[in-house]
Formats: sequence, C-alpha cells, structure tokens
Amino acid sequence: MAQQLWGGRFGDAEGKTNECLAKLNCSLPLDSRFYAEDIDGSIAYAEALARAGLITDKDAADIGAALEVVRREWRDGSIKFLSSDEDVHTVNERRLTELIGDVGKRLHTGRSRNDQVITDMKLWLRRGIRETLAGLRAVIEASVAQAKQNLGTLMPGYTHLQRAQPVQFSHWMLSHAFALQADCQRLLELKERANLLPMGSGALAGNPLGVDREWLAKRLNFAGVTPNSMHAVGDRDFVVDFIYCCSLASLHLSRLAEDLILYATKEFDFIKIADGFSTGSSLMPQKRNPDSLELVRGISGSICASLSGIMMTIKGTPTTYNKDLQFDKQYAFDAFDRLQDALTVVEGVIKTMQLNRERMESALSPDMLATDWAYYLVRKGVPFRQAHHYIGEVVAYAEKHDLELNEIPLGELQKICKEFNVDIAQVSDYGVNVEKYDVTGGTATKSVKQQLKTLQNFIEELKQTK
Amino acid sequence: MAQQLWGGRFGDAEGKTNECLAKLNCSLPLDSRFYAEDIDGSIAYAEALARAGLITDKDAADIGAALEVVRREWRDGSIKFLSSDEDVHTVNERRLTELIGDVGKRLHTGRSRNDQVITDMKLWLRRGIRETLAGLRAVIEASVAQAKQNLGTLMPGYTHLQRAQPVQFSHWMLSHAFALQADCQRLLELKERANLLPMGSGALAGNPLGVDREWLAKRLNFAGVTPNSMHAVGDRDFVVDFIYCCSLASLHLSRLAEDLILYATKEFDFIKIADGFSTGSSLMPQKRNPDSLELVRGISGSICASLSGIMMTIKGTPTTYNKDLQFDKQYAFDAFDRLQDALTVVEGVIKTMQLNRERMESALSPDMLATDWAYYLVRKGVPFRQAHHYIGEVVAYAEKHDLELNEIPLGELQKICKEFNVDIAQVSDYGVNVEKYDVTGGTATKSVKQQLKTLQNFIEELKQTK
Amino acid sequence: MAQQLWGGRFGDAEGKTNECLAKLNCSLPLDSRFYAEDIDGSIAYAEALARAGLITDKDAADIGAALEVVRREWRDGSIKFLSSDEDVHTVNERRLTELIGDVGKRLHTGRSRNDQVITDMKLWLRRGIRETLAGLRAVIEASVAQAKQNLGTLMPGYTHLQRAQPVQFSHWMLSHAFALQADCQRLLELKERANLLPMGSGALAGNPLGVDREWLAKRLNFAGVTPNSMHAVGDRDFVVDFIYCCSLASLHLSRLAEDLILYATKEFDFIKIADGFSTGSSLMPQKRNPDSLELVRGISGSICASLSGIMMTIKGTPTTYNKDLQFDKQYAFDAFDRLQDALTVVEGVIKTMQLNRERMESALSPDMLATDWAYYLVRKGVPFRQAHHYIGEVVAYAEKHDLELNEIPLGELQKICKEFNVDIAQVSDYGVNVEKYDVTGGTATKSVKQQLKTLQNFIEELKQTK
Amino acid sequence: MAQQLWGGRFGDAEGKTNECLAKLNCSLPLDSRFYAEDIDGSIAYAEALARAGLITDKDAADIGAALEVVRREWRDGSIKFLSSDEDVHTVNERRLTELIGDVGKRLHTGRSRNDQVITDMKLWLRRGIRETLAGLRAVIEASVAQAKQNLGTLMPGYTHLQRAQPVQFSHWMLSHAFALQADCQRLLELKERANLLPMGSGALAGNPLGVDREWLAKRLNFAGVTPNSMHAVGDRDFVVDFIYCCSLASLHLSRLAEDLILYATKEFDFIKIADGFSTGSSLMPQKRNPDSLELVRGISGSICASLSGIMMTIKGTPTTYNKDLQFDKQYAFDAFDRLQDALTVVEGVIKTMQLNRERMESALSPDMLATDWAYYLVRKGVPFRQAHHYIGEVVAYAEKHDLELNEIPLGELQKICKEFNVDIAQVSDYGVNVEKYDVTGGTATKSVKQQLKTLQNFIEELKQTK
Repeated sequence: MAQQLWGGRFGDAEGKTNECLAKLNCSLPLDSRFYAEDIDGSIAYAEALARAGLITDKDAADIGAALEVVRREWRDGSIKFLSSDEDVHTVNERRLTELIGDVGKRLHTGRSRNDQVITDMKLWLRRGIRETLAGLRAVIEASVAQAKQNLGTLMPGYTHLQRAQPVQFSHWMLSHAFALQADCQRLLELKERANLLPMGSGALAGNPLGVDREWLAKRLNFAGVTPNSMHAVGDRDFVVDFIYCCSLASLHLSRLAEDLILYATKEFDFIKIADGFSTGSSLMPQKRNPDSLELVRGISGSICASLSGIMMTIKGTPTTYNKDLQFDKQYAFDAFDRLQDALTVVEGVIKTMQLNRERMESALSPDMLATDWAYYLVRKGVPFRQAHHYIGEVVAYAEKHDLELNEIPLGELQKICKEFNVDIAQVSDYGVNVEKYDVTGGTATKSVKQQLKTLQNFIEELKQTK
Repeated sequence: MAQQLWGGRFGDAEGKTNECLAKLNCSLPLDSRFYAEDIDGSIAYAEALARAGLITDKDAADIGAALEVVRREWRDGSIKFLSSDEDVHTVNERRLTELIGDVGKRLHTGRSRNDQVITDMKLWLRRGIRETLAGLRAVIEASVAQAKQNLGTLMPGYTHLQRAQPVQFSHWMLSHAFALQADCQRLLELKERANLLPMGSGALAGNPLGVDREWLAKRLNFAGVTPNSMHAVGDRDFVVDFIYCCSLASLHLSRLAEDLILYATKEFDFIKIADGFSTGSSLMPQKRNPDSLELVRGISGSICASLSGIMMTIKGTPTTYNKDLQFDKQYAFDAFDRLQDALTVVEGVIKTMQLNRERMESALSPDMLATDWAYYLVRKGVPFRQAHHYIGEVVAYAEKHDLELNEIPLGELQKICKEFNVDIAQVSDYGVNVEKYDVTGGTATKSVKQQLKTLQNFIEELKQTK
Repeated sequence: MAQQLWGGRFGDAEGKTNECLAKLNCSLPLDSRFYAEDIDGSIAYAEALARAGLITDKDAADIGAALEVVRREWRDGSIKFLSSDEDVHTVNERRLTELIGDVGKRLHTGRSRNDQVITDMKLWLRRGIRETLAGLRAVIEASVAQAKQNLGTLMPGYTHLQRAQPVQFSHWMLSHAFALQADCQRLLELKERANLLPMGSGALAGNPLGVDREWLAKRLNFAGVTPNSMHAVGDRDFVVDFIYCCSLASLHLSRLAEDLILYATKEFDFIKIADGFSTGSSLMPQKRNPDSLELVRGISGSICASLSGIMMTIKGTPTTYNKDLQFDKQYAFDAFDRLQDALTVVEGVIKTMQLNRERMESALSPDMLATDWAYYLVRKGVPFRQAHHYIGEVVAYAEKHDLELNEIPLGELQKICKEFNVDIAQVSDYGVNVEKYDVTGGTATKSVKQQLKTLQNFIEELKQTK
Repeated sequence: MAQQLWGGRFGDAEGKTNECLAKLNCSLPLDSRFYAEDIDGSIAYAEALARAGLITDKDAADIGAALEVVRREWRDGSIKFLSSDEDVHTVNERRLTELIGDVGKRLHTGRSRNDQVITDMKLWLRRGIRETLAGLRAVIEASVAQAKQNLGTLMPGYTHLQRAQPVQFSHWMLSHAFALQADCQRLLELKERANLLPMGSGALAGNPLGVDREWLAKRLNFAGVTPNSMHAVGDRDFVVDFIYCCSLASLHLSRLAEDLILYATKEFDFIKIADGFSTGSSLMPQKRNPDSLELVRGISGSICASLSGIMMTIKGTPTTYNKDLQFDKQYAFDAFDRLQDALTVVEGVIKTMQLNRERMESALSPDMLATDWAYYLVRKGVPFRQAHHYIGEVVAYAEKHDLELNEIPLGELQKICKEFNVDIAQVSDYGVNVEKYDVTGGTATKSVKQQLKTLQNFIEELKQTK
C-alpha cells in the first residue's frame, strides 16, 4: 500500500492530507534533480550502517545494487511516481523496498530526511559550482579571445558615461572578465568552506547508533563533518552563499550587457550584435533589437530576487529545521539555471559580435587628452593641482571659441600658463598617450598583454579544477 | 513556411536565432496563460479596424469567427505550436492566418506586440484581481465563522510576545481578518486605477490609421485610454502594483501563520491544527508538524522576492519598451499562484483547527490585570502616571514575595497607595474587565460583534463586485 | 526625579537599562520629527478625556495651554532632553508634568504609546504625502514647461535603445510626467485609505474608560476609526504603502535620469545638463559629469531598499506590537527625505537643461520610417503582415547596398512589391509622418497638446488638494 | 580661495553648483570616517611619487609631516571644513596645501579620487572586518561560557517548533555559535580576497608616470595590486561582500533572538532576560518586554536592506565609475554600525540571562522518546521503517487513550509489535538517551564537550588574527 513515510501516527479517516498542502508539500518536481546524489548518499550510508554493525555487509551490498537499479530507472525515464511520494527520498526508498523488501526498510536507520536532504544538496552544490565555473570560464575565454584579437584598437574610456580618456578596447573587454574571475574565486572558496558532511545529524540530535561520520565523510569526499547537529539541520547558508555568488556574477553580466547595449546603439555604433542574438519587431521592419542582452539584465534581477527571497525566508525561522527552508531548492535551482542561460547568451554575444573600429577611434577627441596635457605641465614642474586648473581654463577657452584643444594657438595657451611650448603638439597622439599607461592594470599594450596572460593562466588553472 | 513575425529583414543563412536566445525569448509557456484575453483583444481590434475602414466588416467578422475557433483549440488542448512561435500573439495570429489566409494578415495593422501584450496583461489582471479577492474573501469568511462561533472565549493578548491583557479569541482572530480587508481595498483601488486601455499605442508612437481608441476602450470595458503612448508601452506599474498587493497580503498571512504556529506549540497549546494540514517526520514517529503554515511563511518570502525582482528590473531600463520587461509575467503569475496556494491553505487551516479553550483561559493570570488595577486607582482620582507607578511597585512586591496580584494583603497594597480598598477584589474577574473595553475596535463582546458585522457587510459587498 | 515611564516595576540596583540597549531603544532622534503631531494628538486626547468625565474641562484646558508652551520650546529650540527620555512622547509628557504638575500625569489615562505613536505617524503621513505631492507636482510642471516650449521638436523614439520611430521631444518628456501623475494618484488614494484614527486602541485591547473615538476622529480630521484595536497597534501597512509609493516614484525618476544621462553623452548629445547640476573630475580637467542624475539613480536604490527592509522586518513579527516595528520611522523618513532630494534635483535639471535640437533631428534616419512605408503598402491594400515582410526585404536590400531607404530605385522596390509607386517619395518627411499619429496619446502635435492639457488640469487639481 | 578641485573648467557666474546637488554630492559626513586611512594612503603615495622621481624626497617628507599634522587636527577635533570641501580627500589635500603650499599641490599627481577612495575603503575594510570579528568572537565566547556552565541541562529540542527530541541546552546554545563561526570564516576569506591595492588605477586608464604599484602595495600591506584599472575603479564587490557577510551574520543573530524571545515567553519560560535588556510598558505596569532582542531582529532587516540596496544600485551602472557608487559608504557603514549594535546587545543578553532549568526539564515528555523507542525495536531486529510505523501506532494509541507512552501496558504494546518487552522501560530516561547521541556534533556530553573545544580553539585563533 502506498503510504507516506510518517503515516503510522496519523488516523486514516480524517487524517487525509489536504490536497493543496499535499501539492505544496511535494518537492519532487524540484528535488528529483538530485536523484543521483540521493542515491550516492544512500549507498554510502548503507555501507556505514554495515560498518556499525546495524545491517550486514550483504544487506549493504543488496541495497547498493538495488539503488543502482533505481538510478538506471531515473536515467532512462522509466521510474514511476505514486501520489504518496513526497520527495525524491521517498521515491528512492520506496523503490528500494519494492525491489528488495524488508532490507530496504533498514536503510533509514538513524537517518532523518533533515540530514539527508542537506547532504544531497551539498553533493548537488559541487555539480552546481562546477558547471557555473565552466560557464564563467567560457565567458572569460570569449572575452580573452576578443581582447587578444583586437589588441591595439582604441576607444573612448568612459566614467559617468562621459568620455574620459582613450583606452584600448581590449582593456575594456578584460575589465569585465576580471569581474568574472573574482566570481570564480568566490565559488572556489565556497566549495571548500561548504565541504562538510551533514549526514549523521539525524533530525536534530545527532546519531545514537555508532555510525562513523568521519568515515562517511571520506567516503563521500567531504573534508570533514558538520560540528553541531542542531546547527546542521537548520543551516542553509551554503545555499545562500551559492545564490549570492550567482547574483553577484549576474550583476557583472548585467553591467557588461548594459555596456554592450549602449555600444550597439546607432549613437555609439561601436559593435554590431550578431543576427543570432538579435530579434526584430512585429511592427517596425527595420529594427534589430539586442533582446539577448536585455534578457541578461532581466535574469540578473531575478537571481538577485532569489537571494532576497531566501534571506527573507531564513530570517523568520526559529531553531533547527522548519519547512520554510524547503524553498531553498527553488531559489538555488532558479539561480543556477538562469545564470547558465545568461552565461550562454553572453558568451555567444561576445564571440559573434563585430567591432566597428573606425567608429571607436573616430569617437576619440582631443579634449580626452586633457589629463595628459596636465601631465605635460607636471613634467615641466608645475604642481599637478595647478596644472589641472590651467588645463581647466584651456578647456573652457576651447569651448568658448568652439575649438579643439589642439587648435588653440600657442600664444593663447601661454597666456594661461607660460610653461606651454611647441612640444605640446606631441601630446596629441592618442596611441602614444595610451602606451604611457604601462603600469600593472593600465591600458598600454604591455599592460594589457600582462592581463591577458593573467587570465589565460587562470583559465588553465580552472581547467585543472575538478 | 513557419517564420518569425519579423523575419523579413534578417538574412537566412547566418541569421538563425541562437538556440539559447530562442528559448529565453520564447514567452509561450507563460503568456499562453492569457490566450483568451489575447483573443478577446484581437476580436475587438478587428472590429475597430473595420470601423476605421481599414478592413471590411466581413473581414472583421471572419477574423472574429476564426479566432473563436482558435479559442476552442486552446480550450480543448488541440492547439499545436511551431518552433517559430515566440509567444501567444504569434500563435494566435499564425493560426488565424492558417484558417482564413490573407485576411488574417490584416489583423496586426497599426498594432504592435508592445501595446498588445500590455492590453492582454491588463485584461488578465482583472481576472487575477477577481480571483485574489475571492481567495481573500474566503479567508475572511473562515475567520469570521471561527470568531462568531467562539465569541466569549478569553485568551491572553500579547505584545512583544509577552502576556499583556486578556482579550477575546475572536478579537484576535478578526485582527488578522481586518488586515486582509485592507488588502481587498488595495486591489479594488488598483482595479480602477489600472483600467485604462493601452491598445492604440503602437510600438511607442501611437496609431496613425484612425483607430478609435475610446470606442475600443468601451468595447473592452475600460474606463478610458492611456494618455501617452511612449509611457504606455514601457509602463509595468500596474503589474508592480499587483505584486505589491499580493506581497502585502502574503505578509499578513505570514504573520497569521506565525501566530498559529506558536499557538499550536505544546507550550502554548491553544489550538490544534487538523491532521489534513499537518505532516509527520520520517524519523520521529510522534511528530505533528504545522508544515502547511510554514509553507505559507515561505510563500510570503517568495512573493516579496518577486516584488524586489520586478522593481530591480524596471529600475535599470531606459525609455519605453525593453525586453527586460518580459519578466513581468513570470513575477506576476508566480505572485498570483503562490498567493492562491497560501490563501487556500490558510482558509483550510482556520476552518479545521480546533480550539483548546481551557488552555487559553488558564493562561490568563492576575498580573495581566495590572492595567485595570491602575484604572481602579484612576477612578479613585489618582493621576494615571502615578497609578501606573504604584501598580509597578505592586507587581514588584508580588514578584518578590512570589504572590499573584490578588494574593497581596490589602494592608500591603495600602502601604504603596492608600487609595486601595476592599473593592479592589472586584477587579480580578477577567470577563468583567474584558467587557469594559467596549469602545469601537475593543475587545468587549459588543465591540467584537460590531467588528463581525463590519466584516460580514464587507463580504457581501465583495460578493457584489464583478 | 527623571525616570522612564515604566520604571515602577523594575528594581533600582540591578535594573539599569544596558547602555547599548538604551541607545537603540531611544527613538528621539527620529520621532522628534513629529513633535507637533504628538502635541496635536495629546491636546485632542485631553479634550476627549474631559468629554468622558475623566478629567475636568479646566484640566483639559491647562494641558492644552501647557502643551502649546512645549510646542514653542520645540519650535525655538529651547527644549531640553534628559537621558531618561526614550522618545518624543516621553519628552512631551515629562515637560507637561514639569509645567503643570499632577494634572499632566492624567493625560496618559487609557492611552498607550502603542496607539499614540501610530496616531502621530498618521498625522505626520498627511504632511509627508502633501510635501511629496508638491515635489512631484514641481517635476511635472517643469516637464510640462519644457514640453510646451519645445513643441514641434522631433527626435528619435527608442525601443530597446534602438531607433524606432520619429517622435516629438515633448511626447517623450511627457511620457515621464505621466508616470509621476500616477504616483500622485497612488498617494492621494493612500491618504484616503489610511485616514482612520488608531487612538483609543490602547496597548492592544481598546479603551475601557468611555473615550469617544468617533468624536476624537472628527476632532483630528480623520474619516473614521480603526476597526480592531489588536490589528491597529501592530499595523504599519500605511507606512509600507507610503514607502512603496515613494519607491515607485523613485523608479520613475531613475528611469528619467537614465534617459537624461544617455541623452547628455557626447554620442547622443541631445541635451546639455546645466553646470549647476554637473560636477568635474579631480584628475581630468575636461570632464562634465551628470552626477546629479547618477545620485538620483542611487537614491532610487536606497528607497527601494527601505521598502525591502520594512517588509522583511514586518514579516517576522507575530501578533500586535513588537519593537521591531520601531524601524518604521527610519525607513519612512529616509524614503521621504531622499525622494525630496531626488525630486528637487530632477526638477532643477529639467528646468535648466538645454536642448540640442539640431542633433536630435539629425539623428532621424529614413529607416525609422519603415513602419510608415509598411502603412503605405497597407493603404494600397497589402495585408499588414505581408507589407511588414516586404519592407523587411527593402531594409535588407538597403543595408546590403549601403543605401538609405529613400535612395533605393523605384524599380528595385517594385521587384519586391509591385504596389510601390512614385508616391512612396511622399512618405519620407518625418514631420508629416509624425503628425499622422494623432490618436489620443500619440505623437502628433494635436495629441501632445491634449496631453499637455491633461497634465495642466491635473496640476491645477493638485493645487486645490489640501 | 576656497574652490572645488575641478573648478577650472566651469564658469563662475552661471556655474554655481546647485545647492541640493552640493548637499547630496558632499560625502564628508560619511567619508570623514576614514580620514586616517586617507592620510595613510596619501603618505605612502607621496613616497611612491618620490621613488618615481616625480617629487623630491624632501617633498615627500614634508607632505608626510604635514599630513601627520592634519591627522592630529582630525583626532583632536580641531579640523575645520569649508563649504567647498566635497569629501575627506578634498579636506586633506586642502589642509595640506594650506600648511605647506605648492608642494601639497603635487600630491595628487597621477592619482584620481576614483582610485583614492577605493584604496581608502579597502584600508577601512580591514578595520571593519577586524572589529566585526571581535564582536562575533565576543558573542561566541559568551555562548561558550553559558554552554560550559550549563552542561548537563536538558531541554526539548524543537523542529517545526514542535518538541522533537531531548537535547542539552548547551547543544542548542552552541548551534548558534557555530553559525557565527562560519561568519568569521567568510570575513577572514574576504580579508584575503579583497587585499589588492587599487591605487595606481587613476581615473580609469592606469598610471602613466611610472609609479611603482607593487612597491606601494607592499608599503600598505596589500598582497598585490588590482589587475585592471577600468575594473578597479568601478568595482565595489568587496563592499558588497562585506555587507553580505554582515547581513548573513545578522540573520544568525535574528534567529537566535527569535529563539530567545520564545524561550522568554511565559509559555516556554526557559530563560529570563535580565532587566538591563528588558523594557516596560507605558500602560501595562506588569510588562517586561524583550525589546533588546526585537531590535536585533529589526536590525537584521535593515542590514539585509542595505545589501539589497547596494546590489540594486550597482546593477544599473555601466562601465567603470559612476556617482551612484558613492552610496557604497552609506550602506557599508550602516551595515557595520548596526551589526556592532546587534552583537553588543546579543552578547549582553547571553551573558546576563538566567536559565530556568526546572522548566526546561519539565517540558520533556515521554513522546519525545518515540525515536528512541523505534531504535529499541531496531536493536531487536525490526527494520527501521517498520519500527517507525509501529511506534506511530503506539503514539496514536497513547493519544487516543490519553496516556503517555510509558503508561501503555506492555500487552497493548505487544499487540502492535511482538518485539516489545519489559526492557522497554529502560528507554524512558531522558538523560540516558541523550548520552547515546555521542557522534561528532551530537547532543551527548562527550560530543558537546568536543564542540566546546572546537570553539575555544577557534576563539584562540581569532585572537591571534591581526
């Protein structure tokens, strides 16, 4: 007879679970996602039970073999659900018992779904982190490739969306890649920090049957065990941490998308988004819209919303496990899936976008060299703050007379500051000036190459990470 | 040949939409939800085109008839989708054209998906509001029924979760119902405020073909038309407003759930949640957990997250329509569905919960009458602030000597304040004191009956609302 | 002796309030903001006490007179605080008692700070709404003035930040004003909805001393009284509603700021932000940064954060009053103050910005008439969907041959669709096309004038609102 | 003449900065908080300029000496501000120049406020992290002390707020301490991750004057330099990370507060909050309210709001620096200050609270041993799932007959499962059962002692951390 795991204590006649509650309570649509992790954990747990003498070695082997059958059923889609199946744990235990009878009923000895589900989530997290790292790496690689290919292309660097100083396109491109590199670091640290086994915490009090948690931890590749069972069963911080990492990464993609959308406007016209990442209008035949990137911005909003949701939910819960925590999976999987989508789209956009070098370079204007003009005076011995003020006056003069900086007669310049001389003319080549910014992190070719190297090394390291 | 609505301008070979973008771009899983509203809007629009002389009356009639066929296909599930169907609008227009050929291709004249989708959403909103009101009403009704049935049952009223003053259970029950009444008011106001037709705004510039928007508005039961087309196509405030209303309602359910969870603990033991709304433990056979109510708290977190998400998303968008806004549907439908679930659960819990009157009343203690003792002194002429201080000393005395207030010898009381007299004994009946709070909104039976009346009237009004 | 209102029950030696708690608990820095409302409420309450026979008419008059003295002390800054003053209520009651002795101690009869503080907040809310409406009105007025002055100036209308169709600058300007109009409507509705008096709810149970709440409501210009005292003391929805209205208004300002920042880039160059609303760079002498508008965007984030904060806080609270709710004031005042700042800045920017009409109009390009070309074919009898597809091909042809639409030879056009004829040349005047969009809400001059009228009427109505 | 750093380019007459903008733009009230870090950074930068030959060694020494004077002025409060001082950087540079004239004007050579302010924030972050760690440590220490002192005290462990299994009070106490330990780990990781010097990034393009960033990094105890200047100036992730860590820690305090508030109710009555952390009521003389802990919950909401605010703000910004980012300081300092308050309060509450052991132990009831009864059957060879079901029936029987588990006649038990025998009586001692949970993390005394040890070691490690 199909029955909930906990049915014994509830009456039959009146005790029927309300239909809407049953629907809400059922987490199968979500947690079936980690059926494999649930099976991995259960096989290991059966071995731990055998080691503790709670079941025989044969029992453990039978459980292991039967669970592999269940795994295949999941994999080939032949697994069937009953209306009484509340979650993936129920399904697996029920199938196990159908396959091998009473032995299967011994598996849950000393275990609670409270410690089981967190163990499953932590095992899934490894996969979630691994795949997120792969997606981030792909975007970094695409950025590096574009940056490498377009080394030497100049464009205006903006602050406050106002033209500031000439920079290399590659410098800009990599500025976004470095944000994603930091996201990878966060995920790598999380992977280590979260890698403690909760199993053996029971419902909240721990395990009274001599199960060897440290052995189990090694068996499942954990670095250790969670230190307090009451904390362990109510702790979803590793999920919050993961969603936080995803949301921060999504912010970086959103800012990149914002830049790309701007650069793809007719007004900037620095890049062309490929047709494959554009869509048209049902009304206006001429439109090419960067929908792909707008969706990336939208995705970011929704991942941040997941973070906000899980934090708000956790805030209201008292000690140990409360059912509100079941929402952790919804939030985590949403964050993961949407970030994957966003990463795929952004990778594709970067790989396929076309640069309009001419437009980029023609967008440079002499006033963007104002800082370099100030440095010119500094090199002549004028204190910087003074030099800045002089150049401010030069700019004002230029605006007033509708001239570019380099069109102002030397005599006029000298009226403002007598240190101006004919050699000021040499400070009007954008390329030459850019190459002076050769400090680590700067926009000179040498510096950008160093940045490429740094990221390429990082990509290689990531590839080594399991 | 199946094709996107906007394909003409995009090349064939290279122009294939990227697969991941196509998936993200496709809003069909969401917007098929308002297929009926889309058809309603299109039929009306065809009539408007005919009135403007842009199609013949026969064309309009043919379009209307064919769209009714499409509606039936949706209803009976026989509608088929093509991979090129981006959204419900595409599906309906494509089917229409398949059914009646070129005439169908005239339907979109002067219309954009920008104004079409908001019109559909606004039509859906009516339904969303109506059903949400029905759900809220059901919870109010259940609360009123419980309050009515248990009139006269006393319990401790809490502030700061500390016992404060005796109140009626019904007073407490209705305190939550009044929060939901205000939610209804917000929704009713939104229904009016949002009831302006966007159709005729085109992509952003309006309609240049003489379509009579005011006629169309009446035809579709709108109170008027949106006043500025550029604003209309980028405006999702009515969706944000709806989600806000849902999130506030969910907060009210969450606070109610919090109270019920507390009252269902062994420590309070004021109520018993029915078996149908409880679940058990996979490990601990004795457990009866109020999962239903914990899920309600969790739902509230997720609706608030939707609010946060849509606001964050809108914040980043520039003028008029941007694709980020497509997420509005996800947020709105999530908020609506989850609130429905929460309302259903809460209604069920209230209807089926059992009160433990004895426990409620035995939880009253003489110190909860301290305020009434102060009023006793006030009636004797002691200024309230002074009386409060005297009773504070009385309480301290009682604590020190481990006595209840009414066990302190009169002589001791008179040492603190000479106005104490034998009639203080009369201020120790909880019921008598409760009945003194007979102001509007108070906890006296008379006042609570008035509150019941208010809510019953409101329920009747809601029933009249279409 | 200076002492907390509730000191009697707490011992002396050990009972000292912890210093950090005392600091946190003290709400004086915030709630002194509504000292005047607290005094208004107290004077009215004293009258109500007299009407109920709880104090004499002379007592009420003495209290009223003394509280006017206290009001003057606040106003001229001579009011002094003691370390035991927890909040504005304490200060006012203490000063009152210092001024008129025992009579002052009678004021708090039957009242709790729970119902007192909400009454004060609701009184403050009126002022908050009034001033916010004034700020919104000022921005609408500035927008209307700019729109009126520049009627006839064309610019590209954007969707997805891609040029879509030619529109009037004034149409765009008013699109933002209409968003703010809706904000005003929300606030006006809130003002009505929230206008119920909480006073008389006591700590939670109501008032047992015959205070006439309905009289008190009229006395203080409330439309009625709150219907349930337990609900009233724990209800902060009117604060959440207010913050919500502010946050939505801030989103509108943020979107407007986003547009203005873009239009002020060198690449768009449609407007020039006045010097008074720009700042420079410490390093780059040529920079003019639209800091003012960036701060508006930042402000919007912080107001939305206040909304998120108050909702999260309320979610976790059980029945009636809990101290967490004290944070409502911080959130409300922050939202109010910051919105005022943003409104002031935006009003100033709009008033002082200069339009670059030439740039706007030179940004129009023939492809933006593609929709109108489609309508040309529609007028010749081609079904719209077909016409859209033909124009798509025309656009593709133009792109391929690097031509503008109107440069394609008629013969080539006719190869695509034989309905093209010499009169297509007439569809190339931007102004003529714009004037066709003459539906309500459209971009034609007639339509925009109608919009101006609508807003001017609304401004007048707002001016009448008290 | 007092003047903004960037005044040169702006006219005089019309160019006056708008008053409201000036107010908003001025970050002095916030950033004066890191005046010392700004001075530290500037002294080091002057040395770096000297090393690069841009100023003389004597200049650098003079600058250093003068800045120490400025530092003293800040420290003793004698520093004066001018209305033109926009921020702490302006103040320090202005004072420097007033003190030593033209040499001071050389300090800003090659530096921008963009890289300067992030450097200052990163230096401040060290302090912020250090003090937050100290606060967290203090709460952990207080928890450890309480746990140590009360070893052996039993209480009900709850899941879903329903009594689940007997646990040690110390086990529960430490469950919260371990959450805080993880917060410390996050902060320690952040400290390392963020420890890269931004200085030398200039406004966005890097430094063109040969400043040795690596030397500067070492000089200021950074582990390295930021790798891309465009990324560096627009990157506030380290601030978001910090606020995230604070918000997560605040959630932990909020959950602990929630437990303590519950345990301090009359219904639970497990603990008594000290008078110093309680407050009274203005109306009800008997009240003792746990305001301190409710404020902790409220604080948590406000820190989470800061996180939400900064993420929302960053999301909307394009490449590199935009003024919206100025809000980072407000959010960071708010989060820091409020967390400090919450930590102080919680530490105090824990230290001073009194346990009511009798109430805790009398709250244990035989049904809480149901799991242990199931294990009893397991030890007799009954498969766990079967045993769980039997005990479910036993519980149902007990409820039906209004008996405690241990009052059911053996005969009745054997009707349910024949493995029951007289030795079941031995499974009714709470203490004995608790001691069986002796796995790592369990509730047995041995396990709890191990947890104490773990935390004590961690406290020692923290003390070593600089």
